[in-house]
Amino acid sequence: MTSSLKMNRQAMVSFLQTEFPQYVGEVSEVEANYSLLRQPINETHLRPGGTVSGPTLMALADVALYVAILSKIGPVALAVTTDFTIHFLNKPRADRAIMAKASLLKQGKRLVIGEVELYSEGETDLVAHVVATYSVPPLK
Amino acid sequence: MTSSLKMNRQAMVSFLQTEFPQYVGEVSEVEANYSLLRQPINETHLRPGGTVSGPTLMALADVALYVAILSKIGPVALAVTTDFTIHFLNKPRADRAIMAKASLLKQGKRLVIGEVELYSEGETDLVAHVVATYSVPPLK
Amino acid sequence: MTSSLKMNRQAMVSFLQTEFPQYVGEVSEVEANYSLLRQPINETHLRPGGTVSGPTLMALADVALYVAILSKIGPVALAVTTDFTIHFLNKPRADRAIMAKASLLKQGKRLVIGEVELYSEGETDLVAHVVATYSVPPLK
Amino acid sequence: MTSSLKMNRQAMVSFLQTEFPQYVGEVSEVEANYSLLRQPINETHLRPGGTVSGPTLMALADVALYVAILSKIGPVALAVTTDFTIHFLNKPRADRAIMAKASLLKQGKRLVIGEVELYSEGETDLVAHVVATYSVPPLK
Repeated sequence: MTSSLKMNRQAMVSFLQTEFPQYVGEVSEVEANYSLLRQPINETHLRPGGTVSGPTLMALADVALYVAILSKIGPVALAVTTDFTIHFLNKPRADRAIMAKASLLKQGKRLVIGEVELYSEGETDLVAHVVATYSVPPLK
Repeated sequence: MTSSLKMNRQAMVSFLQTEFPQYVGEVSEVEANYSLLRQPINETHLRPGGTVSGPTLMALADVALYVAILSKIGPVALAVTTDFTIHFLNKPRADRAIMAKASLLKQGKRLVIGEVELYSEGETDLVAHVVATYSVPPLK
Repeated sequence: MTSSLKMNRQAMVSFLQTEFPQYVGEVSEVEANYSLLRQPINETHLRPGGTVSGPTLMALADVALYVAILSKIGPVALAVTTDFTIHFLNKPRADRAIMAKASLLKQGKRLVIGEVELYSEGETDLVAHVVATYSVPPLK
Repeated sequence: MTSSLKMNRQAMVSFLQTEFPQYVGEVSEVEANYSLLRQPINETHLRPGGTVSGPTLMALADVALYVAILSKIGPVALAVTTDFTIHFLNKPRADRAIMAKASLLKQGKRLVIGEVELYSEGETDLVAHVVATYSVPPLK
């Protein structure tokens, strides 16, 4: 996990605006060891009972890992999710943004495995944990 | 897996319209052994390259298993996803609906485990496979 | 999933005896659509309470998928497990063999994904369900 | 994750010797935030190519999480694995012990979710990562 960054936060924000205009969350940090995303929560993300929907958390975690991977291998690469496992841990707060902190467990030549910790902004308990694999094109 | 149905297709459609108005897919079949959902695909579900986004598949699978569980335990129960594992298998077609066939592997008193096969309508290859656990309130 | 068999049951038994002498279970069937293994259970596999240990089930499922993969790609290939998810469903019987039926969900050029159903011999309820990915060398 | 320890390392070693005599590894540390196990590797754990077998890693991770859970809820409880997901990351060394560091992601009333990092002793790269759920009897 010693490889340096190929995209910083500003490069990532520009890339997402062009390639994933549907992503409306924020890229808070892109560091060598992790990327941190922030997803504001509104009515469309809520489920009955006033909690954030599971698919909202899944989609955010998927983008967060994608960002963490691209920050290492650069914007030209096409990373495809091959497996994705989420454990739901605590009920998210309906009145706070969800934060997703993604880090890589292994950066292989063809497979990259990472994990994501999701939590309500300002809280310490995790609302969910993700581990997932992405297939990436061979690096030159 | 011998328990009979507590909600049929029509009851399920009505329930979802009331409780999950945000779900815009169709409930095609609710049988004793499985439930089948159909999700029409439009521009909002696509990723660059003309494929259906992973979160679209995840969200559909989550609803499909929810339907399969409620068909067995009835509409009053609150089922909460505790873990969810998806493997992406083949690229979905952008011009076809996604079908999700959900069946239960175990219907326990507190935990229900099920799997979902996702495929493009009219195709035989799976685009994704899901296995997930739901926590349900104790049945009386 | 239309590819034919490259190893039949007898070829598989011989291969395992040479390459995996530590595997002491039986290869019951090797078919185009699935492989079936049978693991006799003795005291060394049991946990307090008279149930089969989780690691016994995991190890059996891992071999069963390995057999299902090799039956398709042949004995020369080196298949490596990359991810493995097991859900424990029902308590296995201590006095019966465990059967593992493995089938492939996708046979890709580099990644093969499969699932395994585990059950006590003669029973219909599953004791566990596995889905896993194997990395295989590129086929020529 | 603020609950204190109900079993320290010495209590855990005694408990395992009585209840799980088949476990031959070592309990190196039992701390409030994690438990660390050490599994010496011998010929019986190896696979062709001189690597530690996947089932060896799975079995060790399962015990490590079991220890981490019992350290929090005490020796009387019966914890049962309900799901278990492992990602294999790097080839373990055949000539070193495997270390398993287990920590809890959530300690619920009925479900406990934890993760395990596995690595060859003295190395920094992970050989595998596990996330798993255990069902525990309700605490009084």
